[in-house]
Amino acid sequence: MKIDGIWHRSVRVDEGDGWSVRILDQTKLPWQVEWLRLTNEDGVAHAIRSMQTRGAPLIGATAAYGVALAMRRDPTALEPVCAMLAETRPTAINLRWAIDRMLTALRNLPPQDRAVAAYAEAAAIADDDAATCAAIGRNGLPLLQEIAARKPGSRVNVLTHCNAGWLATVDWGTALAPIYMAHDAGIPVHVWVDETRPRNQGAALTAFELGAHGVPHTVVADNAGGHLMQHGEVDIVIVGTDRVTRTGDVANKIGTYLKALAAKDNGVPFWVALPHSTLDMRVADGVSEIPIEERSQAEVTDLTGRTADGRIETIRVAAAGSPAANPAFDVTPARLVTGLITERGRVAAEAAALAAMYPEKLA
Amino acid sequence: MKIDGIWHRSVRVDEGDGWSVRILDQTKLPWQVEWLRLTNEDGVAHAIRSMQTRGAPLIGATAAYGVALAMRRDPTALEPVCAMLAETRPTAINLRWAIDRMLTALRNLPPQDRAVAAYAEAAAIADDDAATCAAIGRNGLPLLQEIAARKPGSRVNVLTHCNAGWLATVDWGTALAPIYMAHDAGIPVHVWVDETRPRNQGAALTAFELGAHGVPHTVVADNAGGHLMQHGEVDIVIVGTDRVTRTGDVANKIGTYLKALAAKDNGVPFWVALPHSTLDMRVADGVSEIPIEERSQAEVTDLTGRTADGRIETIRVAAAGSPAANPAFDVTPARLVTGLITERGRVAAEAAALAAMYPEKLA
Repeated sequence: MKIDGIWHRSVRVDEGDGWSVRILDQTKLPWQVEWLRLTNEDGVAHAIRSMQTRGAPLIGATAAYGVALAMRRDPTALEPVCAMLAETRPTAINLRWAIDRMLTALRNLPPQDRAVAAYAEAAAIADDDAATCAAIGRNGLPLLQEIAARKPGSRVNVLTHCNAGWLATVDWGTALAPIYMAHDAGIPVHVWVDETRPRNQGAALTAFELGAHGVPHTVVADNAGGHLMQHGEVDIVIVGTDRVTRTGDVANKIGTYLKALAAKDNGVPFWVALPHSTLDMRVADGVSEIPIEERSQAEVTDLTGRTADGRIETIRVAAAGSPAANPAFDVTPARLVTGLITERGRVAAEAAALAAMYPEKLA
Repeated sequence: MKIDGIWHRSVRVDEGDGWSVRILDQTKLPWQVEWLRLTNEDGVAHAIRSMQTRGAPLIGATAAYGVALAMRRDPTALEPVCAMLAETRPTAINLRWAIDRMLTALRNLPPQDRAVAAYAEAAAIADDDAATCAAIGRNGLPLLQEIAARKPGSRVNVLTHCNAGWLATVDWGTALAPIYMAHDAGIPVHVWVDETRPRNQGAALTAFELGAHGVPHTVVADNAGGHLMQHGEVDIVIVGTDRVTRTGDVANKIGTYLKALAAKDNGVPFWVALPHSTLDMRVADGVSEIPIEERSQAEVTDLTGRTADGRIETIRVAAAGSPAANPAFDVTPARLVTGLITERGRVAAEAAALAAMYPEKLA
């Protein structure tokens, strides 16, 4: 990913000391680009819980580095460290996938060998994620090329919700990967960016990274998508996801389900981009089986941003004394999903198709 | 309406001078209760445009008082003043209805008689609105009583979007009128309050007035409603509206359409409360025919609220340099509307039923 023309990964080992872990503090974006240095597993857990780092694929890779940091200090603590890190966010399945991969790689090694192996495995997870996201981009690109071919001279309007770009992954992003590739290929792509209340990942993060890359985009309130679709202003919806069931149900940031309903009602294709690590073949019914994280009321009632004279302030927008509820995700039933874009290709959101594409996941 | 136990109307003639017009400055809510004094038609137009006063029924009554203020200064200016006030908000039909009523009452009077008649007509419009809203409350109450009877001992969960309470009308509200009456009748009603981005009328205004009246409520991000409905947490949706077509299409605050889609998908009744003045029998197809106001980008990118130490600050939440779009309303097709609650009773959102209930509107 590029910021001010310099290529970065969203998580990396510090170049200076060779062991601590650097992440971009996403709670400071878009007004400050600040790289945090994490030195132990508790720092990693805090960064994930507080959403200093976020995005389903990225928290998997970051948690893997958390295991590596812990192994450096106490290689006998593998199981409790993994259990602790796995609990930091309940909805994203990549987190458990990455930790299971670390457990498998390390469990049978003698303790003195675990730290080196853990750094290697975490690096492999990060490399895999970057390669996987690039493949998702290549597999989603034809969808945008087809729209461009149908309406020459007009912009291709994509709507996205939350942030599933390079800030949510190690590199490239999931939902935004095809968009970056289309833009780089000269397709006149324009992105409607849902602001994504309550944490505003769209307005703050997706707008920031699209702007940094030079992709034309417009921020809209989450409420606006249905109206835009009714008036032909959306050619395709592409979102990321935190967990996809074996039947194709999609857990993603709260409000995704509403956009899927509007897409269905207006004949707009609704696509979901994901790496293999987001598939959870153990789950059949997303609405009843996927745990939905309930986050703090203050995320709804209070907002942080930058004043005109450059101060960072937190303000309450809700009436004094009014309580709030804050479910962080919802589940979009497979019947509303046009298809899934994965690193292996495009596939129907449907059990048989998913099983055929990922037979090894059924084991 | 009650604030700190004292009954107020949202617009009234000043008790001291007997001619200037007092409105509650809704851009200062929920953190400050401030009554503005308006002395001429330009002040009224500014108050409507800037949303110091808002809510389809209330801006109708306020504009009527704007005509009265103008007649006091220059009774020959009736037509241009009415034309100017009618343009202040393009979507709400009550505004045009109220101004047409003023024109009808004043046009054929000699100029010297217009001021007195204008105050009388504006007062009649305000009185009618208060009586109309009380009747809407009585006609919507049975819907909540039926739900309460079906689930004794459990709370009745209503979801509402934007503000269609006493702050949007002269008194009582439209969508909230049945809720106040149910609460006062001892029904354990609880309201999910959509925050209603970008202007947060739900979090700021609906939460404020429900709290002032003592009605249990919870603020949620606009994104949350579909998830709540999927999990049985919403018994009924009741919203207000800015314009209803003769076929039952409903223009209301942006995002209403998304909630109607979710209600349909989950078998949740979706009701719309309105006074007769919100019906626009000239319009058949809401999506293609109703003009949708596009408001300022800053309403999306910037937010105003109160800091923990009591300062009012405006902050930018979107990435620097990212543009925004801000359509203020959307249209919910009649097929998604369970029914309409009016001062004459409940009626299907359908041309024949509406024509039968309001035959005089067809003239």
